[in-house]
Amino acid sequence: MQGDTLLIKSGGAAALPEWQHHFARLMPGLRVCGWDDPFVDARNVRYALVWQPDPGRLARYPRLRLILSAAAGVDHILADPKLPPNVPIVRMVTEETRERMSDFVTLSALAIVRDMPALVAAQRDGQWACDLTGRLARDTRVSVLGLGELGRAVAARLRANGFRVNGWTRTAKPAENVPVFSGEGQLDALLAQTDILVNLLPDTPATRGILGRRLFARLPAGASLIQVGRGAHLDRHALLDALDSGRLRWAVVDVFDIEPLPPDDALRRHPKVLVTPHIASTVSYAARARQVADVLGAHLRGAPLPFVYDAARGY
Amino acid sequence: MQGDTLLIKSGGAAALPEWQHHFARLMPGLRVCGWDDPFVDARNVRYALVWQPDPGRLARYPRLRLILSAAAGVDHILADPKLPPNVPIVRMVTEETRERMSDFVTLSALAIVRDMPALVAAQRDGQWACDLTGRLARDTRVSVLGLGELGRAVAARLRANGFRVNGWTRTAKPAENVPVFSGEGQLDALLAQTDILVNLLPDTPATRGILGRRLFARLPAGASLIQVGRGAHLDRHALLDALDSGRLRWAVVDVFDIEPLPPDDALRRHPKVLVTPHIASTVSYAARARQVADVLGAHLRGAPLPFVYDAARGY
Repeated sequence: MQGDTLLIKSGGAAALPEWQHHFARLMPGLRVCGWDDPFVDARNVRYALVWQPDPGRLARYPRLRLILSAAAGVDHILADPKLPPNVPIVRMVTEETRERMSDFVTLSALAIVRDMPALVAAQRDGQWACDLTGRLARDTRVSVLGLGELGRAVAARLRANGFRVNGWTRTAKPAENVPVFSGEGQLDALLAQTDILVNLLPDTPATRGILGRRLFARLPAGASLIQVGRGAHLDRHALLDALDSGRLRWAVVDVFDIEPLPPDDALRRHPKVLVTPHIASTVSYAARARQVADVLGAHLRGAPLPFVYDAARGY
Repeated sequence: MQGDTLLIKSGGAAALPEWQHHFARLMPGLRVCGWDDPFVDARNVRYALVWQPDPGRLARYPRLRLILSAAAGVDHILADPKLPPNVPIVRMVTEETRERMSDFVTLSALAIVRDMPALVAAQRDGQWACDLTGRLARDTRVSVLGLGELGRAVAARLRANGFRVNGWTRTAKPAENVPVFSGEGQLDALLAQTDILVNLLPDTPATRGILGRRLFARLPAGASLIQVGRGAHLDRHALLDALDSGRLRWAVVDVFDIEPLPPDDALRRHPKVLVTPHIASTVSYAARARQVADVLGAHLRGAPLPFVYDAARGY
């Protein structure tokens, strides 16, 4: 791999020294360059670790062997119309991704069952709201849309907290650690028994806009939403209407179609929405560098690669 | 038990019909009366279920056999200088108490590791604070002071969420589900390795004021506090100073020496304090009535009673 270059677009120029620091220890022979480095020899670029690569750029590297996503999703790469067709794309899934997402969703779900926004408002307003006792996790039904790496980890953690958890997958899957509903045919039945809906679906043409009017109308009145999938899943106008009509009680939204979310965005100003800046499962550079090194090691040994994007499945 | 009366002071006059509703189903032969009922025959009062009973009142019932606390603590009963000396006092501990407390402490601990107050402030201020990634539960050391019914349940739940949990008891105890430090001699060693301190000690002369200057000074700078024990444990001036100096990063305080907390209280207005109105483990009337019925049943059968206050231990 002498001379082999890993080109990085993740975290901007400011993050490059940290990436280089980690790779110097993990893979001393690897050359690590930033996306806008003018001295990169295009023929040496074998690997690209990217978040939202400029369209057309990846096609310029004739010997590119692997594209590594800097995050769990790959839609930000697939959006490139000139994407080299035969280069495998590897999703970023680490133990830390699973742990962080499980921490965040559990926090959000417990905040919902314990009426945390109302408790915070009562403190601010000088009220002693001792009737805000909320409910028990173990009496609360949580439905997890998407049972991939993250969905399964989140479901297990929620169960460990006593929540009554069901899962949904677009296509039927083998048995999981929670009861599984699958396909359009079973979605309505699941929604009807949902107090908290957690979205962890991948972004595919079949799931885009799924969090819309039709879905919200099938939830029991007073259900809540934890949106930690992709921005494209959510019809924001449908969400605002569902919150205003009382159909939905509360929403935690971490991902948006446009990021950063503008300061005056209606979601940000809505009293029933907790907006977080896409931090549900932000993973440290150290953990991601380790995962990239593992993948490149497997690639160099000719071993099977984990978490490769499958165009037929759509994720 | 024909004619036997259970006198209730818990939830006020408004709650009496609900108590009566539950006991009518659970123990149809029991007479259930409110604390201020003028028609109660003092000689028939065999049981009293109370929260903060008026001093001297319990001494008026010559045939009183059991005093049941409406909550886990009994300090509000022991405060009565004329308390009948030989009547057992039973603490209110239910499965629901454990679950609710575990939900609340887990919520608070996850809110601390994920910087929830800063995320809420960023939303309010129109910031996109994508550097607020917080830390992982599994990298966070939580110390639970007090390993009674609630402390053990909370420790187990925190462990299930990946937290690194240690416990402390005032006197040495047999092995628990977490490493146990005990006695004054091991307290400093535990505090030095604490990111989040959870107080679930009973209120005894030996623990009163324990959350004070000496203890806060022995925590690492930037530690946080979850105070769900009793109001008398906390030296509020020491807490405010520790927060203002940066020694403590954040505090969740659910119990106070004076409740309701006055609207202009300094704790309530402090930006690094989440004040909640003593709702961490509020248990439903239904669950408490079930527990009381179980205790009275055991008493009538002559079986050992659970959760009896032990004056020698102090709880």
